[in-house]
Amino acid sequence: MLKKALMVAATGLFASSVFAQADLFKPEDAVKYRQSLYQVMAAQAGVIGGMAKGDIDFDAAALHQRAINMSNAASLLGETYFPETREVKESNLLPKAWDDMEGMQAKGKDFGDALKNLVQVSGEEGFDQAQARQAAGQLFKTCKGCHDNYRKD
Amino acid sequence: MLKKALMVAATGLFASSVFAQADLFKPEDAVKYRQSLYQVMAAQAGVIGGMAKGDIDFDAAALHQRAINMSNAASLLGETYFPETREVKESNLLPKAWDDMEGMQAKGKDFGDALKNLVQVSGEEGFDQAQARQAAGQLFKTCKGCHDNYRKD
Repeated sequence: MLKKALMVAATGLFASSVFAQADLFKPEDAVKYRQSLYQVMAAQAGVIGGMAKGDIDFDAAALHQRAINMSNAASLLGETYFPETREVKESNLLPKAWDDMEGMQAKGKDFGDALKNLVQVSGEEGFDQAQARQAAGQLFKTCKGCHDNYRKD
Repeated sequence: MLKKALMVAATGLFASSVFAQADLFKPEDAVKYRQSLYQVMAAQAGVIGGMAKGDIDFDAAALHQRAINMSNAASLLGETYFPETREVKESNLLPKAWDDMEGMQAKGKDFGDALKNLVQVSGEEGFDQAQARQAAGQLFKTCKGCHDNYRKD
């Protein structure tokens, strides 16, 4: 499972999956599902960031589990990005994301790589807060990369 | 990871976790996170149910993966149920859930057991649509058990 999640993340979060997603989810439902995935990821990120900064007691095992949780959610994102969702008005994705799918895929890959790195280093013996700050900082930068470019507000 | 998810599910979804959740999540954020988890689970359930009923082409491996996805999300529910969330007005959880925590935990255990069963049987050689209908039907009945008793509307 983890291996699969990481593979998906690393090869591009927004790549179309093996499913014909429009047959599985109505566009409105897919957007709701997508936003829920990001919300689940944000909850994990909040704890990871809190531990990295020292606002929450640092716990390597707990941080590692949060990174895996984030990876599990992230691995599902791809199936929510299908063209029919473009017209859903609740979506915060800017039309330019659809017009620049290559650019967005590249940002997705950066995010996938940084998340894969966090999962990996946080599982290693001796993982400490300084390493967490570095790896989580790198990850959050990749979140911002996509938000700044392809998200409303 | 899966083993842990199943263990959490089987021992009671709503049991307090090892974290002091109120230190990790503000009550409002925890409720938003909880609702997102249910939304992610609903997306998986929609596909599982569709395959079980024959509205979506049956694919044993895909159904198994959906059951694992649901289990991953379900394993995170426990940390969102802490007393301070009782006062969050966006929550759909009825006050009686807090007054009958034992009853709610029992419903959570039924759900965890049924989900564990679906994960298991869907991973077995020869898993077919008739088995899916049976195992998914059992699972959805446990969802309804909690919705009917402890959820608004």
